[in-house]
Amino acid sequence: MRLVTYRPEVSAAARLGALVDDHVVDLARLGAHAGQALPADMLAFIDLGPQAIQSSTELLSSYKGQWPVGTALPATNVKLLAPIPRPRKNIFGIGLNYVEHVAESSRTLDTAKDLPKQPVIFSKPPTTVVGPGDAVEHNKAITQQLDWEVELAAIIGTRATRVSEAEALKHVFGYSVLIDISARDCRRAGQWIYSKGQDTYAPFGPVIVTADEIPDPQVLDLSLKVNGVTKQSSNTRHMLFKVNTLIADISAGITLEPGDIIATGTPEGVGAGREPQEWLWPGDVIDAYVERIGSLRNPVVAVGAEPRASVAA
Amino acid sequence: MRLVTYRPEVSAAARLGALVDDHVVDLARLGAHAGQALPADMLAFIDLGPQAIQSSTELLSSYKGQWPVGTALPATNVKLLAPIPRPRKNIFGIGLNYVEHVAESSRTLDTAKDLPKQPVIFSKPPTTVVGPGDAVEHNKAITQQLDWEVELAAIIGTRATRVSEAEALKHVFGYSVLIDISARDCRRAGQWIYSKGQDTYAPFGPVIVTADEIPDPQVLDLSLKVNGVTKQSSNTRHMLFKVNTLIADISAGITLEPGDIIATGTPEGVGAGREPQEWLWPGDVIDAYVERIGSLRNPVVAVGAEPRASVAA
Repeated sequence: MRLVTYRPEVSAAARLGALVDDHVVDLARLGAHAGQALPADMLAFIDLGPQAIQSSTELLSSYKGQWPVGTALPATNVKLLAPIPRPRKNIFGIGLNYVEHVAESSRTLDTAKDLPKQPVIFSKPPTTVVGPGDAVEHNKAITQQLDWEVELAAIIGTRATRVSEAEALKHVFGYSVLIDISARDCRRAGQWIYSKGQDTYAPFGPVIVTADEIPDPQVLDLSLKVNGVTKQSSNTRHMLFKVNTLIADISAGITLEPGDIIATGTPEGVGAGREPQEWLWPGDVIDAYVERIGSLRNPVVAVGAEPRASVAA
Repeated sequence: MRLVTYRPEVSAAARLGALVDDHVVDLARLGAHAGQALPADMLAFIDLGPQAIQSSTELLSSYKGQWPVGTALPATNVKLLAPIPRPRKNIFGIGLNYVEHVAESSRTLDTAKDLPKQPVIFSKPPTTVVGPGDAVEHNKAITQQLDWEVELAAIIGTRATRVSEAEALKHVFGYSVLIDISARDCRRAGQWIYSKGQDTYAPFGPVIVTADEIPDPQVLDLSLKVNGVTKQSSNTRHMLFKVNTLIADISAGITLEPGDIIATGTPEGVGAGREPQEWLWPGDVIDAYVERIGSLRNPVVAVGAEPRASVAA
């Protein structure tokens, strides 16, 4: 299944849908039609476990092309959000996970030349998440070095504590695309959260493809364009630590839970690694692509430095 | 107010309470008695905003010492949990925020000698949180260098994006104690999340003291003992970046939300900085103290390296 979170109208509540051909099918409404209880929320659906994927796949298949009134809309008529608009915790990011990206980073950033011996983990708060088409904020008071990174995102389906590499992929719910926006000049004492953790720095989506449709996550082309020009182009087979290794490694110390997102690292071709270096500026448009999942397109927009919050009761 | 999250019995659901003298008063139940709707959950209470603190304080004051039947229990009869048992996102930690801790860290860890020019931010996932008395897990397959750090925790009350230092403390709901457990040998490429982010690495509590009772967070003694021997003893006036500066700085790029937790850094005296170095081992007991808030006591317990999770439906 290709699952989305969508609004049927601009001001409507977000709902869980399945993309089938050119329609968004509302799983809860189709389920109700068939006498089958299904949630209207992606995280609630993930919490149901693998059985829900199978029964929903069968449900969609049984109606395919003949959607009952009120259960489907043309995809062009809805607003797609990030598939998990509000994660329950930080996103786990993986740094330096493609060989040639390790090399380019060591030339221009403060990272080591040697390949890491263990996954390099960092985090992005849930407030980084934005959906397809949403603005990536460029605040010139904070950064002059805003950079792009296309990544395959793995979404955890079932709780994982100290799982083996052999068992790890059984804990994956599905896969998506995530752009790990990074303000290179906001690293502090080597810590990356401020450079990678600012509001809007994790465009995510547009779909989660369930893991049954991507049995091997290490054979996927991925690429990124800025203003139509290809900047990154690689394949997930070049990951240093594969998805199963990442899950086994993180879960050795940090329990992974349903709905957790692992951004699995970016290949070479980031702005910091280019000669001369290139950065994102207001007006730019980023297009990220991962094979079998799709494209994620986000504009870069200037924001002011003035306070925009008040002490509200 | 001194707010807690507690279980009236071991298997009961967690509830919001106020510590008054030697009793835990159930705010929702006392409110119901007075015809005033109050939540049974700390995060829901924080979401209500500053007005809820004021009305609850008045409510407690009007009944003080004469608790209606079913609204209060002796504090010794309840199980206290972390005041926010499950944060909605990562905890924001601050590294190298006390002058002498910067010096000891540079001698024995891989950090710089110079004082940081900006706050050094890192994160701990919500799965790190445990309550008073709960075990800190020591997994010898992962670490031989488990360390202690006592910290003042600031809990955010109202949403903050790009707030000034002058306005910052108005966004604080209250303060608590947090132990930033750190496996020094689990740093990776300089990133701290794996060393500070493992399960049980954030003992937290036992109370949140609301900000109206701590108008100045920069005058508090804080200390930590291991097995009854004092290891850290300082005062929050020695922070490099004060609480208001931390909130202004983080919120310049990362929106802070109600319930967010900022662990404001630790003073000198950590195990890594001692000669010879000292580490936590199974059987040790940690006592952390912050003036006007209280003491938090946690044992260190061995855990095995074997998997404890399975693929559940």
